[in-house]
Amino acid sequence: MSYLEIAEIDVVPGQESLFIQAVAEAIPLFKRAKGCLSLELRDTHEVPSRFRLMVEWETLEDHTVGFRESDDYVAWRALASKYFANVPRVEHAAQVLKGF
Amino acid sequence: MSYLEIAEIDVVPGQESLFIQAVAEAIPLFKRAKGCLSLELRDTHEVPSRFRLMVEWETLEDHTVGFRESDDYVAWRALASKYFANVPRVEHAAQVLKGF
Repeated sequence: MSYLEIAEIDVVPGQESLFIQAVAEAIPLFKRAKGCLSLELRDTHEVPSRFRLMVEWETLEDHTVGFRESDDYVAWRALASKYFANVPRVEHAAQVLKGF
Repeated sequence: MSYLEIAEIDVVPGQESLFIQAVAEAIPLFKRAKGCLSLELRDTHEVPSRFRLMVEWETLEDHTVGFRESDDYVAWRALASKYFANVPRVEHAAQVLKGF
């Protein structure tokens, strides 16, 4: 069972395009991380400055230990965190039902 | 561009299994809704009573008008809302980057 990391990130209003560009630049850091299966970035219809970075990991520890203790995590934060309006809320969601 | 409805639902602690069963029973209501492309339910590692119902819609209005004004929406709420600990937070997320 994989885990979907959902990082809810409120960006400083007006810096949305810069943030998207930073995430685009960071894609290789995630792509080469052990156990990282997919990555997408979504915006929010109701709150234009809110994004969700959704990253699928083979195991929880691939994210919370393997990635977060790597130099690539430091590089990711250096790219993107300057656009964060506050501390992102990060949770890990596992599928309990697949409807269709 | 499709929209992913993310409904963050905190369930009354202890009623998680009943809630999952209610969502399972509601799957046909979503499956036959116009523009409803997929449905999954995810739980939350950090908060055991928190779920995310993630439903993909062809257009925003397929959810906010078509489904929400239907009898099937009333049936869905009758099945599941008795397990809600509070009002779910519902947002619509559109993909801005597909990393891999």
